Amino acid sequence: MKALVYLGPGKKALEERTRPEILAPTDAIVQITKTTICGTDLHILKGDVPSCQPGRILGHEGVGIVDKVGVAVTAFKPGDRVLISCISSCGKCEYCRKLMYSHCTTGGWILGNTIDGTQAEYVRTPYADTSLYPIPYGMDEEALVMLSDILPTGFECGVLNGKVQPGCTVAIVGAGPIGLAALLTAQFYSPAEIIMIDLDDKRLEIATRFGATSVINSTDGKAVEALMELSNGRGVDTAIEAVGIPASFELCEKIVAPGGTIANIGVHGAKVDLHLENLWDRNITITTRLVDTVSTPMLMRSLQTKKIDPTQLITHHFKLANILDAYETFAHAASTGALKVVIEV
Amino acid sequence: MKALVYLGPGKKALEERTRPEILAPTDAIVQITKTTICGTDLHILKGDVPSCQPGRILGHEGVGIVDKVGVAVTAFKPGDRVLISCISSCGKCEYCRKLMYSHCTTGGWILGNTIDGTQAEYVRTPYADTSLYPIPYGMDEEALVMLSDILPTGFECGVLNGKVQPGCTVAIVGAGPIGLAALLTAQFYSPAEIIMIDLDDKRLEIATRFGATSVINSTDGKAVEALMELSNGRGVDTAIEAVGIPASFELCEKIVAPGGTIANIGVHGAKVDLHLENLWDRNITITTRLVDTVSTPMLMRSLQTKKIDPTQLITHHFKLANILDAYETFAHAASTGALKVVIEV
Repeated sequence: MKALVYLGPGKKALEERTRPEILAPTDAIVQITKTTICGTDLHILKGDVPSCQPGRILGHEGVGIVDKVGVAVTAFKPGDRVLISCISSCGKCEYCRKLMYSHCTTGGWILGNTIDGTQAEYVRTPYADTSLYPIPYGMDEEALVMLSDILPTGFECGVLNGKVQPGCTVAIVGAGPIGLAALLTAQFYSPAEIIMIDLDDKRLEIATRFGATSVINSTDGKAVEALMELSNGRGVDTAIEAVGIPASFELCEKIVAPGGTIANIGVHGAKVDLHLENLWDRNITITTRLVDTVSTPMLMRSLQTKKIDPTQLITHHFKLANILDAYETFAHAASTGALKVVIEV
Repeated sequence: MKALVYLGPGKKALEERTRPEILAPTDAIVQITKTTICGTDLHILKGDVPSCQPGRILGHEGVGIVDKVGVAVTAFKPGDRVLISCISSCGKCEYCRKLMYSHCTTGGWILGNTIDGTQAEYVRTPYADTSLYPIPYGMDEEALVMLSDILPTGFECGVLNGKVQPGCTVAIVGAGPIGLAALLTAQFYSPAEIIMIDLDDKRLEIATRFGATSVINSTDGKAVEALMELSNGRGVDTAIEAVGIPASFELCEKIVAPGGTIANIGVHGAKVDLHLENLWDRNITITTRLVDTVSTPMLMRSLQTKKIDPTQLITHHFKLANILDAYETFAHAASTGALKVVIEV
C-alpha cells in the first residue's frame, strides 16, 4: 500500500509499505477513505516530536471502512464505516475511567506518533471498540474528518476548559485551524462576544465569516489596548490560547478579567513567564489539556443535525498520490490560504 | 484610642488616634475585642504593598462589639457581637453578585490597606450589612478571629480552588499559618492523603499533629523525588502553593499529576516560570484567588459544631498595649514558634 512516511527532520516520502496486520485482539484494520494533515505533523517533520521516529507513517485523523477486526472487538465488523479518533483509549485504565483518554496508560496519542498512522491506504487502530466511532448512514464523511482531532481539540481544550457560557466575552488568540475550530464550537454556548486576535488579516476575515463579533490584528503590538477598549477596560471572561508561543500566552495573561479563565490549546515548546505578581489575586484559572475526544459523539450528533458546519475549515482537496503537494499547500498556509486539506485515498 | 500605625517601610508605632466616625450610611463602628497580625501586615511593613500608605492603622482581622451604625444598616445594631471579614463587600456590584467579594468595585481588601484597620480600639467597617457576621451566643471569640482571613483563605484559595475530594492526594507546599489553615480545612473533604512540604521540621511536626499523613522536608532539594516515591510516581491531584515564591510554585508544577490542580494561595512579588513545554498536554488547572470570604458562614457553623478547631493555630497572646512585642514574636516565627498571635483589646 501507499503511505506517507516520516524519514527524519525535514524528510518525508510517499512509500510502498506492506499492509498492517492485527497484532492484538482489540485491534481493527481500517481501510482509509479520507484523511488530513495536522499542524502536529509539521511539528514532527521539524523534528520537534522525539517520540515519533523516522520510518513512521504519519497521520492521526481520518475516516474509513473496517477491513478486519481482532477477536476481542465486538462493536465493529468488516464493512462498517468508521471515524478514527486521534486518541486511542483502552477504556479500562485509571485515566480512561476518568474520561481522560489522552492519558490512557497504553494509548493516548499514539497514531502517527509511536505507531503507524492514517496517511496511508490502511491503518491498524488499537482498542477499536473505544477508539473508533460508527458513522451513521448518509453522513458527510468529509466533514467527519474534522472530528478526528481539530474540532474536539478546539472544543474540549478551548471551549469546555475555558467555561464559555451564554453572555460571556471570549477572546481567541490565533485564527489558525484550531483557533477557528474553537470559534465554531464556542458558538454552541452563545457567548455575547467572541473577539479573534491574529497577525493575518485574511484569517481575521475568515474569523468574521465564521462568527467572530470583533477582530484585532495584533501586528502593531497594541492588542491589549484594543481589547480593553472593546471590553470597557474589563478584559475577557475566557481567553483561548491557540498558537503555542510565549507571546500569545502572555497576551492572554494581560486580557483575562478577574474571575476569568485562560484555556491553553497551543502546543508549547518553551516555558512562558507567568506573571503571578499581577495574577495571584485575580481569581483566574489557567487550564491545559491534550484533547481527550470525549466530545466526539456529541460533535457527531451536532454535525448530523446541522448545528455546526466544519466543512468551512476545508480549503483544499488532494489524492493520496499527491500528498506531498498537500503538505506543501498546508505548510505554506500564509500564501496558499490553506486551513484544512482533505486527502482522498 | 490606641492604634498600631504604619509609618513607612520598616516603621510602625502604637499611637493615640481619634475614634473613627460613621462616614457613609452603610458604615458601622465596631469596638474591637480581639484582633491578630497577618503575614500581609509584615509585607506592608517591608514596603511591599504600595496601596497602603504611611499613617494607616493596620489590621484586617478581628471580632468586636458594634458601637454605632449608619442609617442604612439594617442587619446590625449597637451591642451586637460581630466577626469582621477581611474583605468589605458592597453586595451590589457585578463582582459581589458573582460572589467575588474580593473584587468588589468599591470594597475588597481595604481594611488596614486603603482605610484604617482593626489593630485599634475601634474601627470603621464599610458595608456593615454584608461585611460583618453576627456571632451566635456562646461562641469562642478567640477561635473566630481565625475566621476573618486565614481560615477562609486556606479554604477558598487552597481547598475549594484545588478541588480537594474524598480519596484524592493533596500536597501543601508551605506549613506556615496559611498552609496549616489549608491543611485543617482540606480535611472537610476527607482526602486520602495530605502531604505537607516545608523547610522547617518544627512546622512539619505541627502539620503531622494537625492531620498531615506525610511530611517532606525540602531542604535537601529532593522534594520532587520524595513526593514521587510517596505517590508511586503519579504526583498529586491537588498541589496547594502556600508560600509565594517562584521555587515553591515551580515545585507544584513538578508534582501535579495529569488532570490535577495547582491552587495558588501565596502572595507573589515576582513572575514564575510556567513550564508549558511540559504541562501543555497534562490536563492541569492552575488557579489564583484573593479570598472572597464567601465561606465565612459555613466556617462559623463548622466551628460552632466543633467540626474544626482553629484555636490550634493560636500560639501567643498579647494585650494591645504590647502589640509591638506581638509583631516581634510573629515576625520571628522561626525562633519563637509563632503561628497566629491573638491581640486582646
